Amino acid sequence: MVSAKMYELGTKKSTIRTIFEFGRKRAAEVGEENIFDFSLGNPNVPTPDFVRDAAIDILQTYEPAQVHGYTVAPGNPQVRETLAASINARFGTNFTGKNLFVTSGAAAAITICFKALAEAGDEFITFAPYFPEYKIFVESVGATLKVVKPRPADWQIDFDDFQKLLSPKTKAVIINSPNNPSGAVYSRETIAKLTDILKAQDHEIFLICDEPYRELAYGVEVPWVTNFYANTLVCYSYSKSFSLPGERIGYIVVPDEVANFNAVYGAIAGAARVVTHVNAPSLWQLVVAKCAGKTVDITPYERNGKLLYDGLIAAGFECVKPQGAFYLFPKALEADDYAFCERAKKYDLLLVPGADFGAAGYFRAAYCIKTETIERSLPLFKKLAEEYRS
Amino acid sequence: MVSAKMYELGTKKSTIRTIFEFGRKRAAEVGEENIFDFSLGNPNVPTPDFVRDAAIDILQTYEPAQVHGYTVAPGNPQVRETLAASINARFGTNFTGKNLFVTSGAAAAITICFKALAEAGDEFITFAPYFPEYKIFVESVGATLKVVKPRPADWQIDFDDFQKLLSPKTKAVIINSPNNPSGAVYSRETIAKLTDILKAQDHEIFLICDEPYRELAYGVEVPWVTNFYANTLVCYSYSKSFSLPGERIGYIVVPDEVANFNAVYGAIAGAARVVTHVNAPSLWQLVVAKCAGKTVDITPYERNGKLLYDGLIAAGFECVKPQGAFYLFPKALEADDYAFCERAKKYDLLLVPGADFGAAGYFRAAYCIKTETIERSLPLFKKLAEEYRS
Repeated sequence: MVSAKMYELGTKKSTIRTIFEFGRKRAAEVGEENIFDFSLGNPNVPTPDFVRDAAIDILQTYEPAQVHGYTVAPGNPQVRETLAASINARFGTNFTGKNLFVTSGAAAAITICFKALAEAGDEFITFAPYFPEYKIFVESVGATLKVVKPRPADWQIDFDDFQKLLSPKTKAVIINSPNNPSGAVYSRETIAKLTDILKAQDHEIFLICDEPYRELAYGVEVPWVTNFYANTLVCYSYSKSFSLPGERIGYIVVPDEVANFNAVYGAIAGAARVVTHVNAPSLWQLVVAKCAGKTVDITPYERNGKLLYDGLIAAGFECVKPQGAFYLFPKALEADDYAFCERAKKYDLLLVPGADFGAAGYFRAAYCIKTETIERSLPLFKKLAEEYRS
Repeated sequence: MVSAKMYELGTKKSTIRTIFEFGRKRAAEVGEENIFDFSLGNPNVPTPDFVRDAAIDILQTYEPAQVHGYTVAPGNPQVRETLAASINARFGTNFTGKNLFVTSGAAAAITICFKALAEAGDEFITFAPYFPEYKIFVESVGATLKVVKPRPADWQIDFDDFQKLLSPKTKAVIINSPNNPSGAVYSRETIAKLTDILKAQDHEIFLICDEPYRELAYGVEVPWVTNFYANTLVCYSYSKSFSLPGERIGYIVVPDEVANFNAVYGAIAGAARVVTHVNAPSLWQLVVAKCAGKTVDITPYERNGKLLYDGLIAAGFECVKPQGAFYLFPKALEADDYAFCERAKKYDLLLVPGADFGAAGYFRAAYCIKTETIERSLPLFKKLAEEYRS
């Protein structure tokens, strides 16, 4: 009666969903304040006032048709010019509005890129640990996702394994820095080495940069990748930088220097049409342009990350220092990360197994929660660690 | 390098786009006021104040995370309850929130339904004249679109031809009433006959009702189809009823009575995931719930439709009386509707050939434009008709 594949995708409970439901059940039993839910990547720094004020000003002063009418599919031309100018001012690039395609968030942006590029038999490569929806999005366009094994020492790139996976079938490489779930930011050295390898290949390979966490970096540079490699598509979202995850607004940058700009931009327009993009929400197009160059206050994330990191290290965990996004990705205290996360539940610590992100033996702790919750969780992490030592 | 299919879909200019560009060029030459552009289905009644006021109130008084946070994929549960109650009050149904799936407009709603239902070899049936994107959306999910020939006398359904196209491969039937481009509203008699035929088939067939124009009907009833046929999915949009086309907000109704509710709703969730729906824009979910049961003032559309209809009839055109939406679909004055629309351009009358909607020999005139523009166009339609008579 229905597509078996869609039914499976729509009904199979994800690990995170299962953890979330467990948390709700426990909260009802022991009280919300006794649940330490590190499972969700939901920004908890409130949407900045400047975003709200911009939205209200637009609603009060613009003609309704200017605000709520259809825009052209790539987005309001003036909005695109403004966003391009803002990128140029920050990264020394030379984009204009025609290099941007405004989308309903980064998930739509990357999927539109995948669909625009994928031909029969194509392979896409990404790096563990990675956002698990990549596999679903890549497979939904008829391509295959190959995953480079993780490099736990610093969560940068295992280049030997990467080289092994490159093939004539490789259409594109997907990177996500700052990274969900590892919190790592790819260094200039990593990006330079990665792009040097891509330049040395016999055929053109696209580099798709999934950058919803670009603005969430703590004292480290997030290199702007089009400055390293011509064949780069940057996918951005305001979900985190403006704490607007529900509004679905972001963009794709398609540089002039990309191999065959007209073909790529045209295929992106076609892919957007097929996923019934129509246009990105029109009010939010105007709002993000009005707020271009600004960002949320990231100090609460930085503070939380440091607090949780220090607490975990003190409790005896191994963990790479937080650099960006709002995740830590420590080593589990036993080889089986599912068993470890189950055991953590005894203390109402809700953690996500690393195997879900292609890195077994680790776990993800999202620290986009109340600082006070993190503070109260630290003795529990300590008890959990002690349990493993005894 | 890129998907040839996506490139073609993204770059091939549609007839409407070509007409639009011609109009822009002519406007630069002879002045905006001398162009009579009947080509675009863009609502021109402004977004109602109650919508703006609701949006501002929500932005000013709710916690930002409540407004802009992710919602669950099917939509904010309270919003769904409110919308279900509003539908029940109008149509005597018994829906609850679990029967609704909030989407980014009707285009997303119908495509999610197509993708949820389509299995290899499936056929979907629709009725000419029809919205041409149906073909692209149906083919994008790997199914085939069959088109029932038009019934120009009243633009209701040619049931003989419909019966011929039904087959064991028919997965679903798509109707669009009030109709783009014909302006017809399917009568109770039409819906009853259609659903009787579906009930008499040996296998379950879904009826997908694409209803972005539901509220735009002039003195005629738009029958609520779930009251006629259990296996009905209703796809709705606020693009026209609230003049919010750029904001992308609508919903799917999945009745309890549908064949295997859990399978259908689950597959819809999976299809939404694959098209990276994530959630419908969260502010607009709250706004449409706050404004449930209201609608734009449709009298300007009604007035425009009558004015244009009377003018065309007086000029000697044949046309079915406007019943709904904001389109007339008169007979062209020569068999070749492309040649007719070309000739109309001499008078700067911009019309869309009916062949684009699967009904050659007719043309679409969208009357969602200034009344004064329609008034000034009538002498030109008269001249055009006289040219054909001389």
